Amino acid sequence: MAQAETTATDNNQLKDIISHAKEYGFVFPSSEIYDGLAAVYDYGQYGVELKNNLKNLWWKSMTQLHGNIVGIDAAIFMHPLTWKASGHVDGFSDPMIDNKDSQKRYRADQLLEAKAEQYEAAGQPEKAQALLAEMGRLLGAEDLEAVKQLIISEGIVCQISGTANWTDVRQFNLMFSTQVGSVAEDANTIYLRPETAQGIFVNFLNVQKTGRMKIPFGIAQIGKAFRNEIVARQFIFRMREFEQMEMQFFVRPGTQMQWYEHWRETRRTWHEALGVPASKLKFHIHEKLAHYADAAVDIEFQFPFGFKEIEGIHSRTDFDLRNHQELSKKKMQYFDNDLDENGKPYGNYIPYVVETSVGADRLFLATLCNAYTNETTGEGAEQKTRTFLKFHPAIAPVKAAILPITKKDGLPEKALAIFDDLRLDFNIIYEEKDSIGKRYTRQDLIGTPFCVAIDYQTLEDDTVTIRYRDTTEQERLPISALREKLAYETSFKRVFEKL
Amino acid sequence: MAQAETTATDNNQLKDIISHAKEYGFVFPSSEIYDGLAAVYDYGQYGVELKNNLKNLWWKSMTQLHGNIVGIDAAIFMHPLTWKASGHVDGFSDPMIDNKDSQKRYRADQLLEAKAEQYEAAGQPEKAQALLAEMGRLLGAEDLEAVKQLIISEGIVCQISGTANWTDVRQFNLMFSTQVGSVAEDANTIYLRPETAQGIFVNFLNVQKTGRMKIPFGIAQIGKAFRNEIVARQFIFRMREFEQMEMQFFVRPGTQMQWYEHWRETRRTWHEALGVPASKLKFHIHEKLAHYADAAVDIEFQFPFGFKEIEGIHSRTDFDLRNHQELSKKKMQYFDNDLDENGKPYGNYIPYVVETSVGADRLFLATLCNAYTNETTGEGAEQKTRTFLKFHPAIAPVKAAILPITKKDGLPEKALAIFDDLRLDFNIIYEEKDSIGKRYTRQDLIGTPFCVAIDYQTLEDDTVTIRYRDTTEQERLPISALREKLAYETSFKRVFEKL
Repeated sequence: MAQAETTATDNNQLKDIISHAKEYGFVFPSSEIYDGLAAVYDYGQYGVELKNNLKNLWWKSMTQLHGNIVGIDAAIFMHPLTWKASGHVDGFSDPMIDNKDSQKRYRADQLLEAKAEQYEAAGQPEKAQALLAEMGRLLGAEDLEAVKQLIISEGIVCQISGTANWTDVRQFNLMFSTQVGSVAEDANTIYLRPETAQGIFVNFLNVQKTGRMKIPFGIAQIGKAFRNEIVARQFIFRMREFEQMEMQFFVRPGTQMQWYEHWRETRRTWHEALGVPASKLKFHIHEKLAHYADAAVDIEFQFPFGFKEIEGIHSRTDFDLRNHQELSKKKMQYFDNDLDENGKPYGNYIPYVVETSVGADRLFLATLCNAYTNETTGEGAEQKTRTFLKFHPAIAPVKAAILPITKKDGLPEKALAIFDDLRLDFNIIYEEKDSIGKRYTRQDLIGTPFCVAIDYQTLEDDTVTIRYRDTTEQERLPISALREKLAYETSFKRVFEKL
Repeated sequence: MAQAETTATDNNQLKDIISHAKEYGFVFPSSEIYDGLAAVYDYGQYGVELKNNLKNLWWKSMTQLHGNIVGIDAAIFMHPLTWKASGHVDGFSDPMIDNKDSQKRYRADQLLEAKAEQYEAAGQPEKAQALLAEMGRLLGAEDLEAVKQLIISEGIVCQISGTANWTDVRQFNLMFSTQVGSVAEDANTIYLRPETAQGIFVNFLNVQKTGRMKIPFGIAQIGKAFRNEIVARQFIFRMREFEQMEMQFFVRPGTQMQWYEHWRETRRTWHEALGVPASKLKFHIHEKLAHYADAAVDIEFQFPFGFKEIEGIHSRTDFDLRNHQELSKKKMQYFDNDLDENGKPYGNYIPYVVETSVGADRLFLATLCNAYTNETTGEGAEQKTRTFLKFHPAIAPVKAAILPITKKDGLPEKALAIFDDLRLDFNIIYEEKDSIGKRYTRQDLIGTPFCVAIDYQTLEDDTVTIRYRDTTEQERLPISALREKLAYETSFKRVFEKL
């Protein structure tokens, strides 16, 4: 697919966010002391709290709010036949081509799609259509030599060397493989799962039977997946190691479109409940469907580099369960004793599946981009810019900072007593170093929604000021009201109530 | 090391627990429809809730209860030099030998250790000592041919074939490797991390600087690790893919023993706070220390197959940080401006490290074994056995079941209203099918601490009965008291207060 155009400003904004993420402990390049590992990142001390909050919120809203959805946690390692059944062994590959002069590697389909876009831009849509059709035909027939010739005959050159000195086109499987077992001679090749969904499908019968689940029901899972991307890019948007949050909803054949519509709306609402404005979300309906799907839509978020997928909702038919049944010889069937319009039980069938699949890292990046705010106030010499992260309090890494305005006169002791009283209930911070203004700024930069200042008046009347991150407004509150205030503002329940 | 003897009864108890875990949705064999994958398991719908509760409790008690410990989440993929620095590339291997007749594979060191035990049992401790010393010398010198000759000269035979027809001894590295990059010619071999600790060490500077951490401080992490075990066994106790919960505590050199003692006690208390009786826990102090350690102790739990490690506390010295500094040429140092006894700042040093490392899957298994209860009441023909899982309410997968005693007369509506009122706050279940007795039994089997029954009296006075899992006693409570009751009984805070 062609890349969206990005302006210089957009790129600067992404750069700012990447450096903010590193400087304030959200995301570090992996193994940075060894100059990093391409397309792999580590979550720092605030990043991990934000990510865990997002994962917990997704998990609870999927499982706890639905009596008919339960979770599982399947291993990354699976039996290799799993990937035969799912089509990944044979079909999960990209056509790749190298320019011999620049050594730069491209995806052959992306080169041709870019050329088609040029035709489109030049007012030659028929040529664009014809080129894409021809490419589709050749890739479908796996005629890679002809794909290479098409690239050459279209005059496509490398953007670095400017030459058409191309290697052959090769299919490259995106699954990582490894050897399990103790010596090479009897080792088995297994794969790092390229998606978490199959862990749910192979456990369909186990969960349905031991959990006494009745259709329609869902199975949710959060876990790592791995893809050996040829071109990994855009920070944590496309990584070789990433985390998925998937829910597979098993339904009676024929009802899948109604559930597809249901989950499409439910999931969009979820993102809005977390504070993403509707204008930054859009649906992208797939015209070209994957081999297993009869309908598919992406929920896209407006990143600095354009609208891009953060979640997919796919009507996967019975493709996966049917293939697993064929290969394993285990019946992947459900007996439905509900009655049809003729008063007879629906009986045995292989369920259809509607999937919701969020990239946890993409959701993290969207959340960070959405929260990142530069606010300018005043004019001329008085102009000031305040940077803060306006996370929803339910997912903010740190809920509150407890700050004595000075380090003396018993204020630290008073503040620490408040801190100790609340720390078992909330992830909070105590800080006494530096001026109160500097400490407010630091909390703004990591997105702490509430700062609680302990001052001389506190010693007299047991009240504190609470400062709100988004407005910088302050309010006087009794200490005794703090727990309830924080509990209300930061609870998942506030998000759930919008769903 | 030699295996502990287990009696038939013990083995039966483990078997019972394994089949209970499968039948009630806690643990399934991985890819079971394809006849499983050796030493890999999946967590089912109740298993994942139990495991998540254990992980969250560990995480919060490590980070939230300590102002000076923060978390991170480093990737599984790391730069390959990481494993050079840590010693895993050169030293993380087991000496392996096969019997050619039976095709059975053994660890050469375990064969010799078993022989030494025989000498010991036969009243020849000097022979045992001499054998172990010789083995240590030969393995240290990597003289694998001599190790093989030692096995032969000791007359050790395969327990299946009864022959001494051995292959050569080979060193087998336990790390899984894979290729990253898009074609074989420029691919790089990377490893699946065999421990999570290194993700913390390579991020030491990032976290210390961006988090403004002052020594002593800790970094905690939960994540998957992978080891290609030659002999994997005992259910989820030793898996090829497993999850660690580790905390590395960075201290001033010379103070490590005091912190080692501190964490040893703190961590033991933690297990007791979760309901493990002191009699089922013991310390096992390492006499043979790993190359990086100056003190090490295991916390062992009494599994059906004997006392075995669930957590290790290790004083790791500055081994890891020093090696990373040497290999990466990045200074892994900390400037300590606290004053020593001469009034001078301690200045720059490489911190020492005390590690606490829990196997999350082992903790899960210990929790399950500790909770699994068969209680026999009555005598003769009246004798009954009740099986239940007595999980601490804070970690139980399901907190409460809401059960109308019959399916009619408005009781389900009343029960559902209670369910809806509480479901945003707690992971609870609603069930109306089958007799109330059967439903109680089902909740016992998955370890739900509280059953709430809605009966005819409820319609009159808005009270319900609450049945306690461990005693089966019942108590009448107003509906309005339920939320507070459940919140109190199931909160992490109740555990934290014991720490």
